[in-house]
Parts: sequence; C-alpha cells; structure tokens
Amino acid sequence: MSETDTQIAEARAAYLAELVEAGHLIPSGVPGLYGRSGAFEGVIEHFEAYVTRRGADQNAEVMRFPPILSRKTYERTDHIETMPQLLGSVHTFTGREHEHSEMAAHLHAGEDWTGSLTPTDVVMVPAACYPLYPTAAGTLPDGGRTIDLRTFVFRHEPSSDPARMQIFRQREYVRLGTPEEAVAHRDEWIRRGLDIHRSLGLNVRRELANDPFFGRGGRVMKATQREQDLKFELVCPITSEEKPTAITSSNCHLDHFGAAFGIHTADGAVAHSSCVGFGLERIALALFRTHGMDPDGWPAEVRSVLQL
Amino acid sequence: MSETDTQIAEARAAYLAELVEAGHLIPSGVPGLYGRSGAFEGVIEHFEAYVTRRGADQNAEVMRFPPILSRKTYERTDHIETMPQLLGSVHTFTGREHEHSEMAAHLHAGEDWTGSLTPTDVVMVPAACYPLYPTAAGTLPDGGRTIDLRTFVFRHEPSSDPARMQIFRQREYVRLGTPEEAVAHRDEWIRRGLDIHRSLGLNVRRELANDPFFGRGGRVMKATQREQDLKFELVCPITSEEKPTAITSSNCHLDHFGAAFGIHTADGAVAHSSCVGFGLERIALALFRTHGMDPDGWPAEVRSVLQL
Repeated sequence: MSETDTQIAEARAAYLAELVEAGHLIPSGVPGLYGRSGAFEGVIEHFEAYVTRRGADQNAEVMRFPPILSRKTYERTDHIETMPQLLGSVHTFTGREHEHSEMAAHLHAGEDWTGSLTPTDVVMVPAACYPLYPTAAGTLPDGGRTIDLRTFVFRHEPSSDPARMQIFRQREYVRLGTPEEAVAHRDEWIRRGLDIHRSLGLNVRRELANDPFFGRGGRVMKATQREQDLKFELVCPITSEEKPTAITSSNCHLDHFGAAFGIHTADGAVAHSSCVGFGLERIALALFRTHGMDPDGWPAEVRSVLQL
Repeated sequence: MSETDTQIAEARAAYLAELVEAGHLIPSGVPGLYGRSGAFEGVIEHFEAYVTRRGADQNAEVMRFPPILSRKTYERTDHIETMPQLLGSVHTFTGREHEHSEMAAHLHAGEDWTGSLTPTDVVMVPAACYPLYPTAAGTLPDGGRTIDLRTFVFRHEPSSDPARMQIFRQREYVRLGTPEEAVAHRDEWIRRGLDIHRSLGLNVRRELANDPFFGRGGRVMKATQREQDLKFELVCPITSEEKPTAITSSNCHLDHFGAAFGIHTADGAVAHSSCVGFGLERIALALFRTHGMDPDGWPAEVRSVLQL
C-alpha cells in the first residue's frame, strides 16, 4: 500500500520532534528556520572535509561568498522571472526622525511597520554559485576553471518538513569551460556523489530532476529541462521511502550563465557551466535518520570515513 | 601632525586595493560586500579554533543560528527603535501570474520592481546573540548558562572601508545569569580577549564604547551606555593609528534581554546577560595588515599559536 500524504506529513512531524528533542534543531517559531546543535554542525564540518578530500584532484579555487548578493547581479539572472516565489529582497530604513517615529508607532500598534522601508543594494543568495558568475566575466584560461564554493542560500518556502529549510548551506564545485568540460564535470560528480553518499551508508539513487519554475511558463521550462537531461538529483529516504529527498544535485546550465555574465572560453565561445551542490543540512538529516541521533554511536565505518 | 579624513580615506582605499590584488577580498560591486579567498577563510577558521581552545574552560553550549531571524523575535528587541538605519527586512513575492508579469515588466524597464513584494516572517540577524534569547525563556539552571555562538550579521552601512562590511561573522560567548555572573563574564573576556589578540602580534587596547544608536534619542542612550561603563571594545590599528578599528567587543546588557524575553535566574529574578563578540573578518584584516598578505610568511610564533 502506498504512503498517503497524511502518513508522510506525520513522519515529517515525528522526525522534526525527534531532532528538536535531541537538541539538533532549535525551533525559532518560523517554519523551516532553526538553530543547529554543535553536534549537527560537527557532522556538517566533517562531511565538508570529506568532500574536500574527495575533490582534491579538482585543484579547485576556493571562494567563500556571504549569504547576500548584489541586487544588480541578481537582476542579471532570470531568477525573478523563473522562481520569484522563492526570492528574498533585503530592505532597510533610510528615513529621518519623524518617519522613524511613525514606523515605531506602527510596530507598537501591532501593525505592519515595513511600509516606509526601501530596497537595499542586496538580496538573499538563491544558489551558492550566483555570486561567482560576475567575478568570472571575461575570458577563461585554457581548460576553464573549477571553483569550490559554500554559502547559505535562502528560499522562501515555509514548511514543516525538517528537510525543507528556508535557509541552508550548499557546498558546490562549479565548472566553467567548454560544453564538453561542463557535461563531464556534471557526470563525474553524479558518479562521485553517489559513491560519497554510499560510503556513508546512505541509500541514494540518481533521478532526473527539474527546478521549481513558477507559473504556466514554468511548466514548459520544467519539461524542457527534463527533455534535455540537464539536472540530476541524488535522492535519499529521510521521512519517506516513496518520496525520497534530494540531498545533492548536479546540474548543467548550458551557456545560461556564460551568456548572462559575459564569460568566454579561450577560443571566444560563450562559456558553459555546470555545478554539483551538496545540500549540507539535508545530508546531516539523512545521516541522523539513517544512523541515529548520536554520532558517537554511528557505525565504525561511517565514523572512520568522516574522521569523527 | 594628526591624520586628516582624506588621509584615512586614502589608507582605506589603498588597503582594500591590496586585499583585492591579493585575492583575499573579491568585489561584488556593492560597497562592503565581498567574497573571501580560501586563505582568508583559513585564517578565520584557525582563529576560531584558537578561541575555542582558549574558551574550553567555559564548558559552553554550542549553538549555530543561520543569518536570518524570526521577525516576531526581532520585534521584541528594541532594534527598530534604536538602530533602524542598520536593519535588513526580508521581503518576497507572493502574488499570482499577472502580478508576476507586472513585476518582470518593471525590472525590464529598469524601474523599481519591488513594489509588490511582501514582508516575510524573517529579518537579517543584527547581532549573533539575538536568535538565542527566545530559546532561553524560562528559568536558568543554578550558575546560569554560557553559550558559544557564531553567525553572519547584517548591518546596512555601505562603506569603502574594508573593515566596515555590510555582512560579517561574529563569534560570541554569551553569559546568562545573575548581575555578578554577567559582569564577571564581560570583564574576564576583556582580559582574555586582550591576551588572545596580543598573542597574535596585534597591537590592541581596551576602549570604553557605545552602540550606534539612532537620532536624538540615540544620543542620550549613547551617553548613558558610556556612563554605566557597559560596553568595551578592543581596538587595533588597521588603516589608521589614530582611529583604530574595534575588532572585538565585550558588552553587558544588564536585564535588557532577560526582561524582553522572560529569562529568569533560579531565584526568580530577571536574568542579566553579557557577551564577548569577536569580529572575525576584522580580526583577519588586522592580521593581514600586521603580518602581510601571505599567511605562510607570518611570524613563526603567530603561525604556531594559530596552528597554521
């Protein structure tokens, strides 16, 4: 008998309660926004170090961008067109004292106090690789570039599923180069990703996937993305066997970002790009679900691989 | 002869250029928003590990909150009253297809496209300890609590000074307890902070300080905070000898957060709180300024202390 939506919702609520009871997630009152325990962070740090060891042959350039992005850069992507329901635009107060008094009065009256705010020059980072592209404008070296990234990304999708957070970290290896280099990177990291997760005892499989594009136009884009075999996810059961959770994805962007940001290969063609993104919180959630709430009690082989 | 404002501005621009040339800061086009090099991140990671070793006797609970905060929690602090010019409120798109088309049309016309956005349930974290307080509501154990925090904090203050970023990390030890416990924590971490920084070859000194409170009312609050000797900063020359930069601060909040969030000591009194906050990016900037752009060439003693 197949799982019902109610059963899946109950399994998610039960796992969230278990994580909170263990102290690994600390509720904030906002669905999908949690503090993390030291042990939860430790698992992520050790997983990241493992990825670094497995990716050492990539000789990647390490860059770390903060969780906000230039608004002008954001406007050059098509995120507003394709995934507006997920965006986070940062606004602030730039008024004078009398406007400040009015704003405070609204707050104290329990009213919306944000009416007088103005947009800043920044938005929340929607995907770890967005801040990279404008910095790569111009001509790539022969052989292209591989960049090691990690940041918090924001997605406005409040959910009671502990694996659907509004803010979480992606660790990525991004490839910029020829079409062949981009596809080879994507495919290599699907293979390597499967092996990395399986070496940690996670029951992952590869699935063709699409991004959550918005509206009627989005339905066409989803179908096209699938027809072109561009995006693959590594999925793992967390709170459902039948609807496993994507914990890592590997995605070819064709010349989408190369064209938007003026990135060219050494021969003058528009660069292609691809990336693998490890969903660090989801991977930790899959590990705690699979091996138990206390990393000290995880199987010796898993502890050894993670150097716990 | 004392430094002029022009000389200080020139020194800041020169240091920023040097950091960009070395690849340690990666410009985004927005003042005060940069990517960081792997070497820059490495210095921060090693400094944090050093702080952890120096703070081991605190037996602190480790919690890691993401860079966004519940809006309801934020509204219970007085940040909107006291520092509205620094806030970051996160807004998103919740409309339907026709509103989406209008928003995209504004974007393509080069107009403000944010008019139809609505506030989310979250704001940017203004200080690393804010997310903690609501989770500590109720009665503290005997002896109070000490919590080890680190997160990115947002402050809307665009600047060409590389040491004044719009988003940066604070590593904190927060003390919740009696008035005596809070003051003792603040004072101990001023002493320990001086020693930590001096052991890294940084020329720090202690200064009485105040928060950047807004407007006319804020001037009174600044004076009161100074009269009560509540906040101290450890300052270090980065781009000016005469106007050194605060790289760490240690601050007593009296019962400000205890009262706002219903935190009590075992004897039923409103809890006091204090915290030390290490400004991780500023500390890295002070280290690169003092010892040079290549950590491999830093003095052996500094490298040894940082276990580089």
